Amino acid sequence: MQITRTADYGVRLMTRLAALPPGTRMTVADLARDSNASVAFTGKILQRLAGARLVVSHRGFEGGFELARPAESISMLDIVSALDGPLRLNECLPGGSGCDRSALCNARDVWVRAQAALAAVLSAQSLDRLAVSTAQNRRGP
Amino acid sequence: MQITRTADYGVRLMTRLAALPPGTRMTVADLARDSNASVAFTGKILQRLAGARLVVSHRGFEGGFELARPAESISMLDIVSALDGPLRLNECLPGGSGCDRSALCNARDVWVRAQAALAAVLSAQSLDRLAVSTAQNRRGP
Repeated sequence: MQITRTADYGVRLMTRLAALPPGTRMTVADLARDSNASVAFTGKILQRLAGARLVVSHRGFEGGFELARPAESISMLDIVSALDGPLRLNECLPGGSGCDRSALCNARDVWVRAQAALAAVLSAQSLDRLAVSTAQNRRGP
Repeated sequence: MQITRTADYGVRLMTRLAALPPGTRMTVADLARDSNASVAFTGKILQRLAGARLVVSHRGFEGGFELARPAESISMLDIVSALDGPLRLNECLPGGSGCDRSALCNARDVWVRAQAALAAVLSAQSLDRLAVSTAQNRRGP
C-alpha cells in the first residue's frame, strides 16, 4: 500500500512549478535536473499531468511547462489521483472489481473510513502551501 | 496504493476465527471453503499469520487453527501489517529507503499525517467488533 515513484516525483514537479514567479515556465530538461530524474521519466509524468489538466505546455523560445490553474486550487490528492488513479485501498471500494460478500462484510466499512481519512489529509493540502513551505526550507531558518 | 489480496483474505480468515465459539478450531480446508479461496492460498496466509503470532495451529483429531490471543486485542492494523508489512505510504517514511531531500521537503510531513490518519482508523478497529458485526449481517436484521 504505497504511492508509486511516479506520483512521488509528480508531487515534486508540481511543487517546483508552483514556486515559479508568475508567468515563468520550466522546460522538461530543467525540471528533470531539478528533481534528480531522467528527462524521459520527467517527460512521461508531465504528459500525464497535462492529460489531467494540471499543467500546460507552451512551445517556442520561452516555452516550457506551467501550472494549468492557481496552485491554491490544486491539492496533493489531485496530483496523486492524476498519476496513480483514484484512491482505492481495497478492491471492494467504489471503482474496484467489487466483492460478492459486501453485504455481509463489516471490514468494508472500515476500509471506507480509512480511505476517507487518508483522502481528507491529502485533499486539505493545497499545492501553494506545499510550495511556500518547501521554499522556506530551502532558504533555512 | 492498495492492500494485497493476501491481506484482504487475511482479514476475512481472522474474522471467521474470531466468530468461533470459545475452544473451537477450524481446519485449513474448512477456512478455505468458508472464504472462497484455495486451500494452498489459505494455508499460506495462515502460515504467515502464525508467524506473526496472530493464530496458532493444533494437530490431532480436534486440531485446526484458532486465534492466538483474544479478538479484542487484535486490530485490523495488526492483521494488515502482518501480511503486507508495516504501513508505508511513501518510501521517504520511516522504514523506507529514504530520500535525500527530506530536509527540504514539505510533502513528507503530509505523508506522515496521511499515514497516521489511515493507521488510526485501522488500529481502532478491533477484531471482536468486526466479527460481531459480520455475524449480525449474516443473520440479517
